[in-house]
Amino acid sequence: MADVARTVIAGDFGGTWLRAALVDETGPIRERREIPTPRTTETDAVTREIVDLMAGMMPADGPDPAAVCIATAGLVDADRGRVDISPNIPAFRNLVLTGPVSARTGIPVFIENDASAAALGEHRFGAARGVRHLLHATLGTGIGGGIVVNGHLYRGANGLAGEIGHTVIDVSGPRCKCGSRGCLEAMASGTAFAERARRLIESGKSPLLAEIAGEGPPTGVHLVEAARRGDRISEAEIRNGGHLLGVAIGGFINILNPDMVTLSGGLLDIGDMLLEPLHQAVKAFGYGAAPRTPIRLSELGDDAGLLGAAAVALERLDEG
Amino acid sequence: MADVARTVIAGDFGGTWLRAALVDETGPIRERREIPTPRTTETDAVTREIVDLMAGMMPADGPDPAAVCIATAGLVDADRGRVDISPNIPAFRNLVLTGPVSARTGIPVFIENDASAAALGEHRFGAARGVRHLLHATLGTGIGGGIVVNGHLYRGANGLAGEIGHTVIDVSGPRCKCGSRGCLEAMASGTAFAERARRLIESGKSPLLAEIAGEGPPTGVHLVEAARRGDRISEAEIRNGGHLLGVAIGGFINILNPDMVTLSGGLLDIGDMLLEPLHQAVKAFGYGAAPRTPIRLSELGDDAGLLGAAAVALERLDEG
Repeated sequence: MADVARTVIAGDFGGTWLRAALVDETGPIRERREIPTPRTTETDAVTREIVDLMAGMMPADGPDPAAVCIATAGLVDADRGRVDISPNIPAFRNLVLTGPVSARTGIPVFIENDASAAALGEHRFGAARGVRHLLHATLGTGIGGGIVVNGHLYRGANGLAGEIGHTVIDVSGPRCKCGSRGCLEAMASGTAFAERARRLIESGKSPLLAEIAGEGPPTGVHLVEAARRGDRISEAEIRNGGHLLGVAIGGFINILNPDMVTLSGGLLDIGDMLLEPLHQAVKAFGYGAAPRTPIRLSELGDDAGLLGAAAVALERLDEG
Repeated sequence: MADVARTVIAGDFGGTWLRAALVDETGPIRERREIPTPRTTETDAVTREIVDLMAGMMPADGPDPAAVCIATAGLVDADRGRVDISPNIPAFRNLVLTGPVSARTGIPVFIENDASAAALGEHRFGAARGVRHLLHATLGTGIGGGIVVNGHLYRGANGLAGEIGHTVIDVSGPRCKCGSRGCLEAMASGTAFAERARRLIESGKSPLLAEIAGEGPPTGVHLVEAARRGDRISEAEIRNGGHLLGVAIGGFINILNPDMVTLSGGLLDIGDMLLEPLHQAVKAFGYGAAPRTPIRLSELGDDAGLLGAAAVALERLDEG
């Protein structure tokens, strides 16, 4: 029995979809399902939907999966099995997840912050297989991170390690929702690019961007499209964002001296316009580990969240 | 024999003094000696002085110490037992230290970056005894750091972890000697305070500071004295430096989520004028671990370097 490959149930809960999958410990996803993220704040209804989704992954016959792990956006209290708060999911406020899912499935259930899970997923299944120390950065609507030390997920004192979005790179920058100023997330995330687009349109400096954005609120996608269609001022905003990401990542490398940095998230779709200035800014640091550290793109694509959750489940099981 | 307390020989090599001591594993320093840091760049002469200094700590009778560890400023290649380069010690350039000292003493010799050693010293002997995850920041002429993870010194991939001085907090700040811009060390170190004093005097805005500095080059100490004697503009510079230190430390906490942050180094002599804005800036972060993490001052004073080196020696021995 011992050499039969284990399976685990993985959850990847974001602002748009709640995803679930049955994952082999060697990586392949055997089965998957997703439902729209509930808009309600009714805790009981949301809990029922989640329990149904996760329990629906239990195989009808054959051996039970070894565990469930749910990776979710927001502040996660892994010890209590609870999501304290998740900025983009109104129902996820002091929501206990592990107890109800475990009661229904009868197997161990863990939860983890999604950026931390993504780091461990990249380490077990992706671009950072086998490296000792890893920093993984997720560059999307927000900016998050996860840290692997000695091949294990590093959670810090309270499971909050890796909040790289709330490090300041411009003390005189815009106010961040965290209370500080000029945080990386306030300057170079998807949200920050949308804000850059809004200001550009307001200034009247980019008629093309205004045309692309139309009536609705401007987004980062509009900014990228304007840049691709030759709008120099939109391109400069994106390049500046890439530069700031590189400046920040260079600093993180100097603190952590990881063997590798991996990147994932929607911002990577922008491509070289973002990545070129990012790499240049990292290399501008002459001391410390920054200029010599490899920076790789995630190999897991849309499955990063699910495979991250699976990796956490497997690590938790191995730790006993 | 096994329950006889071990002793180790510790070295603390800085720009002004090379210090050596015989240290009990429980902390007390039994004997110490120091010599001025050699000004020569002649490798052989410097190596001889260092070997004499360290070997001079071998007890004339009684059991041999268990090991030697030298903590030194600069980039240290611990595996090769070599200092690659040390900004303030001209002779320390590709200087192999462990081989010659070991050949003479006959016991194992280790070297370590001084800021990393200070972190482990604080963890074994000082304010952070027994905490699981620690960030230690040394705030002096330069700014360095050391990280303890799971009770062990975290060195990163190349022994370069903890270079917190070269993280950017102001992308439009002054050029840093590392090649980047607005690094913490370029804005809030002893060197940065000296530069602030120089600019203040040049601007003609602080006659008192100019008077205190006299003919020589202005220093951070002059700036502090002017502030203490009521010069508001000098005080504002120091408070701004404290604010920037807090902004940076808040970010480091959000990345690492340590159980505690400890601070040491000459800048702490400034006292509340620096520390008040520092603490305020850390607490301004509303998310992440920053606002809730204890920040303590080092308890080791001038012995931090020696006790740090001793702690590294003991950890290396325990690791086998």
